[in-house]
Amino acid sequence: MMAAAATAQQSGATNTPEQVPAKSLPVPTDVSPQIQKVIATPPATTWKDLWTTGEQWRTAADAQAAKTLQKLPGLRERLHVKVEPATIDGVRVYMVTPDVVSPEHKDKLLVHVHGGCYELFPGEAGTSEAIMMAGFGHFRVISVDYRMPPEAYFPGALDDAMTVYRAAVKQAGAKDVGVFGTSAGGALTLEMMLRAKQLGLPMPGAIAPGTPMSDVTKTGDSFYTNEMVDNVLVSRDGFCDAATVVYAHGHDLHDPLLSPVYGDMHGFPPTILTTGTRDLLLSNTVRVHRKLREAGVEAQLEVFEAMSHAQYEMDDTAPETHEAFGEITAFFDKHLGH
Amino acid sequence: MMAAAATAQQSGATNTPEQVPAKSLPVPTDVSPQIQKVIATPPATTWKDLWTTGEQWRTAADAQAAKTLQKLPGLRERLHVKVEPATIDGVRVYMVTPDVVSPEHKDKLLVHVHGGCYELFPGEAGTSEAIMMAGFGHFRVISVDYRMPPEAYFPGALDDAMTVYRAAVKQAGAKDVGVFGTSAGGALTLEMMLRAKQLGLPMPGAIAPGTPMSDVTKTGDSFYTNEMVDNVLVSRDGFCDAATVVYAHGHDLHDPLLSPVYGDMHGFPPTILTTGTRDLLLSNTVRVHRKLREAGVEAQLEVFEAMSHAQYEMDDTAPETHEAFGEITAFFDKHLGH
Repeated sequence: MMAAAATAQQSGATNTPEQVPAKSLPVPTDVSPQIQKVIATPPATTWKDLWTTGEQWRTAADAQAAKTLQKLPGLRERLHVKVEPATIDGVRVYMVTPDVVSPEHKDKLLVHVHGGCYELFPGEAGTSEAIMMAGFGHFRVISVDYRMPPEAYFPGALDDAMTVYRAAVKQAGAKDVGVFGTSAGGALTLEMMLRAKQLGLPMPGAIAPGTPMSDVTKTGDSFYTNEMVDNVLVSRDGFCDAATVVYAHGHDLHDPLLSPVYGDMHGFPPTILTTGTRDLLLSNTVRVHRKLREAGVEAQLEVFEAMSHAQYEMDDTAPETHEAFGEITAFFDKHLGH
Repeated sequence: MMAAAATAQQSGATNTPEQVPAKSLPVPTDVSPQIQKVIATPPATTWKDLWTTGEQWRTAADAQAAKTLQKLPGLRERLHVKVEPATIDGVRVYMVTPDVVSPEHKDKLLVHVHGGCYELFPGEAGTSEAIMMAGFGHFRVISVDYRMPPEAYFPGALDDAMTVYRAAVKQAGAKDVGVFGTSAGGALTLEMMLRAKQLGLPMPGAIAPGTPMSDVTKTGDSFYTNEMVDNVLVSRDGFCDAATVVYAHGHDLHDPLLSPVYGDMHGFPPTILTTGTRDLLLSNTVRVHRKLREAGVEAQLEVFEAMSHAQYEMDDTAPETHEAFGEITAFFDKHLGH
């Protein structure tokens, strides 16, 4: 305990909000040059895009996806991964396969649910994280191209992910299956476990929800502390929560299948969580970690210095990116098959 | 990856510092009432106390210690712990013993190094964290009342801690010894491991550095992002770094025995780290975590929602406090003796 606090405690607490003056954040020097560049990027003005219909979101998503697609050939080439479209029990997927599958991963299978606030990264644009996992980890990955508005609303994305999960379990056996995803994909990973419990399906061997949108009711302290600090999501009143409201389509946002931090996590498989100190969802990642630990689940937390939302997968050439996927690989290696 | 970032990436990075407007932080509702009260406490004006001599610091420390001492009888009573002064090879210590030592902790011994920026909490005032560990964990604890300025400067605190560590290892055997502490005590815990390596001493079974002052060169992104957000340390230009400069007494602050994040952590024992999302030392906790993981060390990170520096030990009646010491106990149980 420090002097200031000890004295402050005696002055008596109030419920007055803490006032934080304007500040200037230098680009940190204790991260790689690649991540310095990611951190130095000003927030895009598009964080204020608050579309209100599925059709508007799809138009925005398609425009953005066209740009993402341009980057994928280089990513696949650098990481020696091939991507092929397929369908599994009627659900669109991409089979993401590294040139070299590790011998110890021969019987393992990962299911990937992409991020994008339940609205963005349709089609192949949603495969970049799956490519990194396949390439860095030498795993076979199935990336779910789940339906998004206006094609389907809640719980369409979750239903599609469950269809693929069932098929993966049937093919590889639950203990050899891992599930992962970031942001909305992190939330979907958690929602899949809640849904699997409801349906009496077996748990996978391990999961890796990255900076999950675990609470879409605007609760979580870093929505405030990291507002305008996170250069990706930027604000709790930004595009991401607006997109989720459209996906929810009138459904209660407190439902654990939309805000999984409110779900019962007893019986969840071993879980590795990844976030950054500037992440708008830092709180909603650590709250899931604590909730898992309270439920007796083996749960590992990784927090990267100075990173905003999901920046551990923004540049595949950064050592931190290699490290983040290396941690997930080591965690899957420790837990899958057991 | 989110829409805003994907667009921002294309706009080209700059090295302009990010500008964060003034903001108001509501007291979070997703923590216990006790921790809400701790969080709602305004920063004490004493954060600007920048004494420049050991004598000035000791005067301030004594005044503060007198207040801390008033709280200790109640703490000891609630947690069923007794505290007795002693000396070990000339070093002042407190033997901190719970009424009930767990049967499985019969052969275990913990060494505690208190916090306070290397200047505060002299004498019995430094025992509160040791009382919590003994009471919540049912461990026997030796709390080191290491010399502080003006009695001794760097590396006096570390030398005293090492003397007690040697004695503990001799008594219990290294693998049955755990070392823990918070803030400067977290830094000292890490510095002790670096020093033990230099001296060829065996590593303990496990360590628990809480929110360590791992970098006193003002490096670490949360020195900026959590400035005026953390209501304990408040600012990188506050009392704590000023105190450390006096302790360092002209010694290079980059020395890993003052800034252990710069040390070689290969061969460190299993480590559990604890911090909070509002902690000014959040970055300097997660940087140690990452560095340990890079060195192949088993390292577990716990980050508590909305807590500023060391607030996981501010109120022994808060469920989060119980949880924080419960995690450390479980970690020691897993690793001590192996």
